[in-house]
Amino acid sequence: MVFILKAGVSEEAIQNFRQEFENIGFDTIYAPGTEHTAVCLIGNTAQIDMDTIVATHPIVDYGKRVTETYKAAGRTVHPDDTIIKVGDVNIGSGTFTVIAGPCSVETREQITMVAKSVKKSGAVILRGGAFKPRTSPYAFQGLGKEGLDYLESAKEAVHIPIISEVMNQTQIPLFENVDIIQIGARNMQNFDLLKEVGKLKKPILLKRGLCNTVEEFLMSAEYIMASGNENVILCERGIRTFETATRNTLDLGAVALLKEKTHLPILVDPSHAVGIRSLVPPLAKAALAVGADGIMIEVHNNPAKALCDGAQSLDLDQFDNLMGEIKKRVALEGKTL
Amino acid sequence: MVFILKAGVSEEAIQNFRQEFENIGFDTIYAPGTEHTAVCLIGNTAQIDMDTIVATHPIVDYGKRVTETYKAAGRTVHPDDTIIKVGDVNIGSGTFTVIAGPCSVETREQITMVAKSVKKSGAVILRGGAFKPRTSPYAFQGLGKEGLDYLESAKEAVHIPIISEVMNQTQIPLFENVDIIQIGARNMQNFDLLKEVGKLKKPILLKRGLCNTVEEFLMSAEYIMASGNENVILCERGIRTFETATRNTLDLGAVALLKEKTHLPILVDPSHAVGIRSLVPPLAKAALAVGADGIMIEVHNNPAKALCDGAQSLDLDQFDNLMGEIKKRVALEGKTL
Amino acid sequence: MVFILKAGVSEEAIQNFRQEFENIGFDTIYAPGTEHTAVCLIGNTAQIDMDTIVATHPIVDYGKRVTETYKAAGRTVHPDDTIIKVGDVNIGSGTFTVIAGPCSVETREQITMVAKSVKKSGAVILRGGAFKPRTSPYAFQGLGKEGLDYLESAKEAVHIPIISEVMNQTQIPLFENVDIIQIGARNMQNFDLLKEVGKLKKPILLKRGLCNTVEEFLMSAEYIMASGNENVILCERGIRTFETATRNTLDLGAVALLKEKTHLPILVDPSHAVGIRSLVPPLAKAALAVGADGIMIEVHNNPAKALCDGAQSLDLDQFDNLMGEIKKRVALEGKTL
Amino acid sequence: MVFILKAGVSEEAIQNFRQEFENIGFDTIYAPGTEHTAVCLIGNTAQIDMDTIVATHPIVDYGKRVTETYKAAGRTVHPDDTIIKVGDVNIGSGTFTVIAGPCSVETREQITMVAKSVKKSGAVILRGGAFKPRTSPYAFQGLGKEGLDYLESAKEAVHIPIISEVMNQTQIPLFENVDIIQIGARNMQNFDLLKEVGKLKKPILLKRGLCNTVEEFLMSAEYIMASGNENVILCERGIRTFETATRNTLDLGAVALLKEKTHLPILVDPSHAVGIRSLVPPLAKAALAVGADGIMIEVHNNPAKALCDGAQSLDLDQFDNLMGEIKKRVALEGKTL
Repeated sequence: MVFILKAGVSEEAIQNFRQEFENIGFDTIYAPGTEHTAVCLIGNTAQIDMDTIVATHPIVDYGKRVTETYKAAGRTVHPDDTIIKVGDVNIGSGTFTVIAGPCSVETREQITMVAKSVKKSGAVILRGGAFKPRTSPYAFQGLGKEGLDYLESAKEAVHIPIISEVMNQTQIPLFENVDIIQIGARNMQNFDLLKEVGKLKKPILLKRGLCNTVEEFLMSAEYIMASGNENVILCERGIRTFETATRNTLDLGAVALLKEKTHLPILVDPSHAVGIRSLVPPLAKAALAVGADGIMIEVHNNPAKALCDGAQSLDLDQFDNLMGEIKKRVALEGKTL
Repeated sequence: MVFILKAGVSEEAIQNFRQEFENIGFDTIYAPGTEHTAVCLIGNTAQIDMDTIVATHPIVDYGKRVTETYKAAGRTVHPDDTIIKVGDVNIGSGTFTVIAGPCSVETREQITMVAKSVKKSGAVILRGGAFKPRTSPYAFQGLGKEGLDYLESAKEAVHIPIISEVMNQTQIPLFENVDIIQIGARNMQNFDLLKEVGKLKKPILLKRGLCNTVEEFLMSAEYIMASGNENVILCERGIRTFETATRNTLDLGAVALLKEKTHLPILVDPSHAVGIRSLVPPLAKAALAVGADGIMIEVHNNPAKALCDGAQSLDLDQFDNLMGEIKKRVALEGKTL
Repeated sequence: MVFILKAGVSEEAIQNFRQEFENIGFDTIYAPGTEHTAVCLIGNTAQIDMDTIVATHPIVDYGKRVTETYKAAGRTVHPDDTIIKVGDVNIGSGTFTVIAGPCSVETREQITMVAKSVKKSGAVILRGGAFKPRTSPYAFQGLGKEGLDYLESAKEAVHIPIISEVMNQTQIPLFENVDIIQIGARNMQNFDLLKEVGKLKKPILLKRGLCNTVEEFLMSAEYIMASGNENVILCERGIRTFETATRNTLDLGAVALLKEKTHLPILVDPSHAVGIRSLVPPLAKAALAVGADGIMIEVHNNPAKALCDGAQSLDLDQFDNLMGEIKKRVALEGKTL
Repeated sequence: MVFILKAGVSEEAIQNFRQEFENIGFDTIYAPGTEHTAVCLIGNTAQIDMDTIVATHPIVDYGKRVTETYKAAGRTVHPDDTIIKVGDVNIGSGTFTVIAGPCSVETREQITMVAKSVKKSGAVILRGGAFKPRTSPYAFQGLGKEGLDYLESAKEAVHIPIISEVMNQTQIPLFENVDIIQIGARNMQNFDLLKEVGKLKKPILLKRGLCNTVEEFLMSAEYIMASGNENVILCERGIRTFETATRNTLDLGAVALLKEKTHLPILVDPSHAVGIRSLVPPLAKAALAVGADGIMIEVHNNPAKALCDGAQSLDLDQFDNLMGEIKKRVALEGKTL
């Protein structure tokens, strides 16, 4: 952490300022200049509230953090890509993982039928919502426990790992047979939930919040990792901007940036990002091209009758076509399905 | 709900479309035109997934909701302002409620001392965080249960109602002696938490999410009210925009709009909105002028040593000065403190 | 400007880096540390492309500007408020200037009638658009030169200074009798236009762009001032955010911040900011309370028949009522009308 | 255009409302219902100010436009892709056009050297800025006329078409030998400039504004086309959002959407979108995958010494490598270079 001091500060005040930090265990570097003086702190500054110091210390002009605060998620300490194992599936580092399935689990027959179809097309993990976060209390809220049962029976019948979203920490025990627990965008900063799933060993798929920065995204991954669970998969799903022609704005620049900053795998969910079915395939291809480690796609046997988010769901044939396009390109990107 | 059909649709297709909705209990209005045809649904359309119908029904061009979906929170059914009682304090309709206190409760002495001081200056409710949502897992996370104990002892000693933030539903029992439960911005769409506090009778202060629209804000209030608790207080605390010169962008236009749309009281939190101490007083005055029902202000006995958010906290004298300014203006706005 | 160097850089590389800048006239401060080394440049760094140095210099980790780059607009060099004289009207420092009039000048009779009415209510400057920036080429584009003629005749008849928007530099000669030239939000970064109006002596009202930061806003003022015209009036008129319930989001936090950073007067245009008539009066009062130096309000004799922006225009009575509210509050804010 | 009327409006008021529009040449459709009544206008509603009617007409509850207002740019009237010819280069429909060159033209030798190199690597058009829009008046503003001369001499020497940005309408005559005139993001809604370039026959590359919607983008293209010039090339270059880790947020979802809505070619500028060199190649590949008709890339012979935007410029080898990647993928996307 670097502080630039105000012009004209006395030598004594500067030395007192350094002493304050040295007293609590930091080394300081001191750079006197013709006008401004810089003081750098050396040590673990993660707990220092820099903004408050800048705002309240009479001799400080501004401050800047030098080191990243996401030590577990960042590449500095862990330069190599993390590979996350889910049954036979390896996520990260050289694979392109395709997760597919309906927004909501509706019936046992529906989810099993979709599971068979998407697996045949090339998906390796089945998604299906049982607990649904909906803006309106009057909208369909998911089948809950029953939905998880149907999803698990599809897993058994079709031999495919499953992922589903948890909405609060009291539901965690219900997810024992779910292979990957999803933390939705609205819960990305539900820190208590992050700490709870951090106590598990199970892989966690963490979606980026609608208005959260890349740095906050990594800090939320850090919450899970700091609690003991290093099996974190990131998922970019579109951010909220002024543009309303698409549901959200898919931020593929953030995906490219995340590949540099973190060793964790990064998936892309184009379905929620754009909310318009016809735009899902081109964005799925773009996600592959930009370097994502996989995609998560909403697929429904009959989108017109879907209980939620039908507008953005591909039908079974459309998904099969998309997988055909993906298969043609995956080797060129140095990946395997 | 109004659907505009595509040009050139057959009469039979239109009648089938109407029949689909009439079969599930809606009346339909039919407006044939030279080019486009409109079909309006009459009935409770809250559960209808309009976007999916538009996206998937072959004859539909677009759709539009006519009626607001926040029936409990909206003014249509409840035209008069709601007044929420907290001990002797009435929030809403003619009062300007000032809530003040530190970001975090730190010690029993600190919170009691701040309580006395802010009460003397004119605050009628004491705030203090015990469970703190922090971006980094390495930052101070609040004193937890101990913090609530200190806050309650300040309540007893100073005779002032208290408000504190709950971070997850398992903590609710700890808040038995807390007069108002706060739902933070990051939890505005933690729907399970909203349902749980909706089972209480206690007033809930719901903060607007950083990237949530006015409509979503009201729908989250609706979650609480639909679960049985009508004692909801809204709080605008700044939204996230491209501007980084202030911490967030305080949306006073939304406050003016909310006063038209809902009967619930609306407070403003300028401290979190701007994050810069010197800007808090002018924005607090602006909140009064725009018609807010009160303000929530961060006040600390020694902001330079605050364990969190010191940069935006007023000290005791600054808060007293602000209250002096508020007292001069409150009658002019037709309110009482 | 401060550069933090990468860890493990050789002493020779550091000295070469310093030499590069000393060769072009900067002093450097050097702060060797246990891990990172800081190098500070002392001198006028406005022309240095810091981002490029950070991105391309092999030994640099990051950089940070220390001094503000808006020297003419900033308070550092000019601490006292600037007062801008327009006929008998003083804008800035102790006055609350009210500008009112229709979005578009429509007829000679209309603008004269509106001028009389708003002057009687308390407006001191008349606004009226002759050249209108419209999103669609098929929308009404303003009366052009004829509109300016009508506006000038209202000025003569009613004895009130006038303001109107210029859309490109070739139109400037037409504005000889216009007292204040307005640069619209869409032209805030039309740098050639800024340079041209910078050659005049006439006051310029510069509106903040829909997606421009406070810093960019001040840099655009700096363009005008650096070209020789120090008579710049700033105007906050709402920024574009994810929220669509209001037309834009009025950023009163930026107004409070600008009052600290610049000596230039700052007005607020609530009409364009919210786009909903009923919200204009509360936001106008909030602008006064937050410390703005005035407001600009759209007023039309018959908003329902206005050729543009009728939805946000007050009628003559509504404006008169608003001025009544303003008059009650202006002394309390230490201002005069 | 559809209006939904308020509940309980009298039959007479409804008929008067219809008559108002029929008097000015519209047909109306009338849909009486149990509660709400809809009135649809049939005809060219582009000039109707719907928002004002909704805000001011006592019987209207809300309104909605049915038809797109960008008739020239939209696919409804022109379903087939437009191909724009620049010398031997065809832009749109089956080609992937690569434009490359430095942010600023610096010397005759530099631009000629870059031109040779990027042409050899596969670029078919040379970019180079002569007039530079810079946030600060103290930053390098480009070589102006001299820069255009150097660019033209590179065109002659290397036999490659050139593109450069015009900043205001008085500069247009200087662009006689420039093959494509670029309208920069900050000028996307400089409507007078759009009208002026609309009088030319030369292709115009129109960049999307930093905070402009897809609809506004198409309306600005419509300005040029309505003035007589149908040779418009669109260019997505990143929008401004809350995320600051990248310079802007590249909106590839908008590119996919634009391919559906308009017949005009759409290029992508990843250099300005992210502002970080290492992220340019992955985003360029993503642009190809999402269906863009080409890319515009900043390339500099020595980015570390570039007079502007060096941080985002590729050097000659990096660009050559990127072109190698593009060449491997272009056939798979059904395109030719």
